[in-house]
Amino acid sequence: MQQQQVTKKNERVEEVFNLFITHIQRFLEEAKLNHEEYTNFVKWADRLGRKGELPLFADVFFETHVLNAMYSDKPGTQPSLLGPYFLEGSPLIESVPGQPCVLTQRPDEDGEVFYFKGNVKNTDGKPLANTKVEIWHNDNSAKYSGFDSDAPKYNLRGHLYTDDNGDFEVKTIVPLPYSIPTEGPTGEFLTYMDQHSMRPAHLHIMFEKEAHETLITQVFFEGDEWLDTDVAEGVRPDLMTKLEDHGDHKRASLDFIMRTDE
Amino acid sequence: MQQQQVTKKNERVEEVFNLFITHIQRFLEEAKLNHEEYTNFVKWADRLGRKGELPLFADVFFETHVLNAMYSDKPGTQPSLLGPYFLEGSPLIESVPGQPCVLTQRPDEDGEVFYFKGNVKNTDGKPLANTKVEIWHNDNSAKYSGFDSDAPKYNLRGHLYTDDNGDFEVKTIVPLPYSIPTEGPTGEFLTYMDQHSMRPAHLHIMFEKEAHETLITQVFFEGDEWLDTDVAEGVRPDLMTKLEDHGDHKRASLDFIMRTDE
Ligand SMILES: [Fe+2]
Ligand SMILES: [Fe+2]
Repeated sequence: MQQQQVTKKNERVEEVFNLFITHIQRFLEEAKLNHEEYTNFVKWADRLGRKGELPLFADVFFETHVLNAMYSDKPGTQPSLLGPYFLEGSPLIESVPGQPCVLTQRPDEDGEVFYFKGNVKNTDGKPLANTKVEIWHNDNSAKYSGFDSDAPKYNLRGHLYTDDNGDFEVKTIVPLPYSIPTEGPTGEFLTYMDQHSMRPAHLHIMFEKEAHETLITQVFFEGDEWLDTDVAEGVRPDLMTKLEDHGDHKRASLDFIMRTDE
Repeated sequence: MQQQQVTKKNERVEEVFNLFITHIQRFLEEAKLNHEEYTNFVKWADRLGRKGELPLFADVFFETHVLNAMYSDKPGTQPSLLGPYFLEGSPLIESVPGQPCVLTQRPDEDGEVFYFKGNVKNTDGKPLANTKVEIWHNDNSAKYSGFDSDAPKYNLRGHLYTDDNGDFEVKTIVPLPYSIPTEGPTGEFLTYMDQHSMRPAHLHIMFEKEAHETLITQVFFEGDEWLDTDVAEGVRPDLMTKLEDHGDHKRASLDFIMRTDE
């Protein structure tokens, strides 16, 4: 049985690699690269690889297509890309009944105070209590902790659990649109493609609940100028919410629907 | 005019990148990777890139397809891959009339002495005198100088010029079949694909002549056990020659036909 599974796994890997080779070969045949163009292309790919930008490039330009291929015809909330800025091991945000969870932040965290409310149900409309909700987003200088920011590693990152009604509420700051890194070969690519490097503002959010498919997605805000041209094409209609102005703070909410495990 | 050329060049780069993205997306759609498979695939590609194995991988698995797309319906000698082991700046081998050029080698160079004769014509059958012939191949431990060998940088590498009849002759040693590197992510890929890592023995040979397309190709030997399953698929029928046994040395010859520049 163990042996059987190993074989099956390798067959799948072989199938995937075969398709990869086939499609790259089709690209080369269709592009009819001359030898100099081929060499230049390989040199660019080599720079991308050596700089460690391959995951960035893949997440920005390909992850969305993986998700579309898997999920676009399925019920429930559409996933969006995990992206390159997720960190394992975020702190648990303790919930005090009747009060919003406060996302890990510096005492003087700059930015517009933001209350985000959500509800989690399954595809039958049943509330999913005690669902793990992982949230991460950038700060008021448009940077992610643990990456390009000097904030503490888990700043503006944390996880909490839904209550008996599947509800949760988090107090944080409004995230900002940001540019993906442009100094390296990924930026070179964008220049060639005459394409900007911006993503609209978003919350990253991930839901985990036993017997359900983990839902990795993002929340976007109406009116953001980069929604239509998001470099990573991560925006989906059912991931949109509206930032309501409440004077000294903003509020928004969105409902999420998780699929049961297959 | 300058401006015009720059624009055209960028349009071509954009076209190539667009096709690249499109075909990778088709691969992802057809392979229907789940998120874990996608993540594993990107991790493998990242290891490949960071190790600097992308050019090796591309040359072994893709370069031949670039050449086929460009040349398979054209007259003249078929090109084969340049491969990752070419070095710029090889020494000129002086020719003494009536004697073969001796390819750069150590005084005690191990291996079977080998005289290789060639002739270069254009597609109209006219001999191409004074054509630059660049030759490089591996040594009797199946290693390339300047890469995995401790031989001097240009050992078994050199260039010479054809005589008035388009003829040349070089004295060297018989090259050996060899394995592409298997310790890294390229080897991982071969293991998944259940594919061996061997290339049949070959001479690398490149011809340059003004007003003609540079011909980069290889020479293979009848009877080599790896001809049909060459990991890099570089073998072509018109690149085959026969090693003739002359007791203490081997001899072989092959004629080459260069295309005029378009
Ligand atoms: Fe993000
Ligand atoms: Fe070679």
